[in-house]
Amino acid sequence: MKGKIDLASGSGGEATKKLVSELFLKYFGNRELQKLADSALVNVEGKIAFTTDSFVVKPLLFPGGDIGKLAIFGTVNDLSVMGAKPLFISCAFIIEEGFDSEKLEKVVKSMAEAARQAKVEIVCGDTKVVEKGAADEIFINTSGIGKIIYSRLEPSRIKVGDAIIITGAIAEHGMAVMCAREKFFDKTPIKSDCAPVTDLILPLLKGKIELHASRDPTRGGLAAVLNELAASAKVGMMIVEDAIPIKPEVKYACEMLGIDPLYVACEGRAVIFCPESEAKKALSKIQKHPQGKDATIIGKVTKGNKVILKTAVADRILDAPSGLLLPRIC
Amino acid sequence: MKGKIDLASGSGGEATKKLVSELFLKYFGNRELQKLADSALVNVEGKIAFTTDSFVVKPLLFPGGDIGKLAIFGTVNDLSVMGAKPLFISCAFIIEEGFDSEKLEKVVKSMAEAARQAKVEIVCGDTKVVEKGAADEIFINTSGIGKIIYSRLEPSRIKVGDAIIITGAIAEHGMAVMCAREKFFDKTPIKSDCAPVTDLILPLLKGKIELHASRDPTRGGLAAVLNELAASAKVGMMIVEDAIPIKPEVKYACEMLGIDPLYVACEGRAVIFCPESEAKKALSKIQKHPQGKDATIIGKVTKGNKVILKTAVADRILDAPSGLLLPRIC
Repeated sequence: MKGKIDLASGSGGEATKKLVSELFLKYFGNRELQKLADSALVNVEGKIAFTTDSFVVKPLLFPGGDIGKLAIFGTVNDLSVMGAKPLFISCAFIIEEGFDSEKLEKVVKSMAEAARQAKVEIVCGDTKVVEKGAADEIFINTSGIGKIIYSRLEPSRIKVGDAIIITGAIAEHGMAVMCAREKFFDKTPIKSDCAPVTDLILPLLKGKIELHASRDPTRGGLAAVLNELAASAKVGMMIVEDAIPIKPEVKYACEMLGIDPLYVACEGRAVIFCPESEAKKALSKIQKHPQGKDATIIGKVTKGNKVILKTAVADRILDAPSGLLLPRIC
Repeated sequence: MKGKIDLASGSGGEATKKLVSELFLKYFGNRELQKLADSALVNVEGKIAFTTDSFVVKPLLFPGGDIGKLAIFGTVNDLSVMGAKPLFISCAFIIEEGFDSEKLEKVVKSMAEAARQAKVEIVCGDTKVVEKGAADEIFINTSGIGKIIYSRLEPSRIKVGDAIIITGAIAEHGMAVMCAREKFFDKTPIKSDCAPVTDLILPLLKGKIELHASRDPTRGGLAAVLNELAASAKVGMMIVEDAIPIKPEVKYACEMLGIDPLYVACEGRAVIFCPESEAKKALSKIQKHPQGKDATIIGKVTKGNKVILKTAVADRILDAPSGLLLPRIC
């Protein structure tokens, strides 16, 4: 597709139809979406997981991903960490008038590829176009439906003594976006970790490994997630700084910029809570997946109500993030 | 709530937590949302309908409604016209930095009231805040899940000979928003028709009245919907201008502004297709509902592939809208 997206493309008339058929149906095409009905009709038996996320990341394209891939995997991950098999995704675009059609096509193509990779179908959608200046290029909402297959993973099931596992190195997505946006460095090897976590979690449940809860540490990073879960499960947590996997280039960039990587978003990692007795089994299964090779046990659930970071020097309280760290990271 | 929404409110940290608990949980609070998990876990048995819509209406408040009410009813209607009972709604906000908290509270309160009226639960959500100038006040995405209860209403079921029913007067939403935005008139009695159409459609199906398809004529109005459905069912349609209900003040405003009301959005109406033999029964049932008192049979499905408008003077082809009519109407 060439040219610019104009207001007519969001009017519901012929121009919208052209955009939908030449772009969305071309890349997302499946039987249900093709009907272009007011709702998709889908089959899910039993209990379902339902989630929504809007993506406003800036820049739209960054090393390791783009807003489209992020939107698909972000929603896929919100389903996966609840023990659900992601099935159906909705996709709603808010586009700024004058947005480049080729850039839109790149994003749409990337969403289609991500959906294929995550084995989900984009079954319904919506397109709005607002005047130039009323939005910043493009915002994407993806909502998702998954089937709860194996068990319910819920924060309330976290118990004192549980092991805390992280499935890979932290802070990569946030630092990749930030470096791409602010151009702090001429060139960095830091790439977003943006990926589906489904195959790191569901096989454990399928293998009858008992898990209590899991979550993907996105906005606010590992520190936010641990604090949230500690508060909702009414427990404390203790994690060991040296055990937390982090790539040297990410650590270096964080140090240079005075940013604590524990507060920086991941988009392809999960934190998993399981009974200590299950931890080694879980870990070895996760590590067999290429995306889980750096998975580690980083700590355990304790009594109390604080998240403590054990460093080489001393123990310190790892607070929930307050104020603003990095806007528009997802 | 007082003050302005700042970027920190979208950071995923303490400020987000405050916004979520003091505003969203206060008004939307239900057991599932309260868990603040990555996905809501809900129960729907059998086939489900799934839909999404983003709302960018300007101004946010207009006679007869606001962006919040519109977002709930818009999604509820996309489910209802497919023969589904709306059950669960997700709600994702993109907020411009500096947006007034009291205005946000008004919108959220209105969404909660609309959800109660439509008997749906807001079970999951998301909040993003973008810098001043990167969005226009607030955009809302609502996705929805409904249970297909009675039958499948699908465009492909529309048959030659079917009666075409509209459940109420047209063009009210679009004209109300347009008049509020452009201030064409000092004062007008025109109000948006924004309302759920669920109780106009589901009781027909429950009463075993055979319906073939239905749709809500939003963007592009009645003309867009009839053209879309005619194309997808590979039929023609004939509607009678004098039979189409329209309030005098709406007709007057349209004439003054040179706008064809057939192309103006409704947000609380449905177009229903049913066998001619069922039409009177359907109509009398719809008319019993206060919102359906002006319901009328406006025409029928014919052979061919054109939508024809029968006027007092002559027949004319009612084309699908092309180009731009009214931006940011929903």
